[in-house]
Amino acid sequence: MKTMPLNKVFTLLEPGPVVLVTTTDGGRHNIMTISWTMVLDFSPRFAITTGPWNHSYAALQESRECVIAIPTVDLLDKVVGIGTCSGADTNKFKEFRLTPVAAHQVRPPLIRECLANIECKLIDIIEQHNILVLEAVAACFDPARKEQRTMHAVGDGTFVVDGRKLDRREMMKAKLPDGI
Amino acid sequence: MKTMPLNKVFTLLEPGPVVLVTTTDGGRHNIMTISWTMVLDFSPRFAITTGPWNHSYAALQESRECVIAIPTVDLLDKVVGIGTCSGADTNKFKEFRLTPVAAHQVRPPLIRECLANIECKLIDIIEQHNILVLEAVAACFDPARKEQRTMHAVGDGTFVVDGRKLDRREMMKAKLPDGI
Repeated sequence: MKTMPLNKVFTLLEPGPVVLVTTTDGGRHNIMTISWTMVLDFSPRFAITTGPWNHSYAALQESRECVIAIPTVDLLDKVVGIGTCSGADTNKFKEFRLTPVAAHQVRPPLIRECLANIECKLIDIIEQHNILVLEAVAACFDPARKEQRTMHAVGDGTFVVDGRKLDRREMMKAKLPDGI
Repeated sequence: MKTMPLNKVFTLLEPGPVVLVTTTDGGRHNIMTISWTMVLDFSPRFAITTGPWNHSYAALQESRECVIAIPTVDLLDKVVGIGTCSGADTNKFKEFRLTPVAAHQVRPPLIRECLANIECKLIDIIEQHNILVLEAVAACFDPARKEQRTMHAVGDGTFVVDGRKLDRREMMKAKLPDGI
């Protein structure tokens, strides 16, 4: 895993991939599958939609830290499995054979098998809308990984895999943030 | 364009495509390109990140209505063009040869050339985080359109086109909302 400069981290979530979010309640780590995420700014801050219906929510609210891990298409069945069981009765790292790795600035673990991991602090909860506001404080990326295609949940049980990449850097030059 | 039941509308935004958002200030229509969107619930409500730096923001804040239109890959250059000029000095419908069509429940227009259009009411502004909360009130979809692949902005001037679709409906059956 290679450290990723914070000013590029928003590019991991802007395309809208399904992600895994790790939390810890001090004793035990947990993972949830989340598709409802949004970039808020380039610093970067992110929003995610979650609430008390997720077992991870209590730990996230309490510890105010999480890791957003970006899985690739080879991990689809784990992502779906994680999203369809509960941390209340399942040790998801064990059940889905994922490897927790100590993070640098937060207590929840990174997931070794993922393409990228973003360490986040919870900076606000907008209870009325079940929106959590997160700030990234560190990130790493695995450039050596062969499979780099992420997945996009449709919400009906199907997923769209990344296809062709199109380059419009020249057209957008004047609008891109510095250093991107 | 075919009417789309409201309970399926969240599946248009959950995959995270870049979208076009139309607004009207009474006299003139405008369009902005937005990639920072999120599903909030199945009713459906959505969040988008925007603020006073967008020319459309004043009209959206004033009229409290917009249309989220979903463009496909054949419209990429229009999407980028719309995102790199301002409604302050450009009539974007004219400049990018897009056709405004009267919506059913809101004043901003649908975009005929798009795959789908979601009519939205603005129900809350979270100023501190530049988050707008929208509620869909009507939607339509063009099933006859040949090109159905949407695009995902990476944020660095590149875009990822929809690739293969993978089906995990069976695994997720118990977790999907009714009727999806």
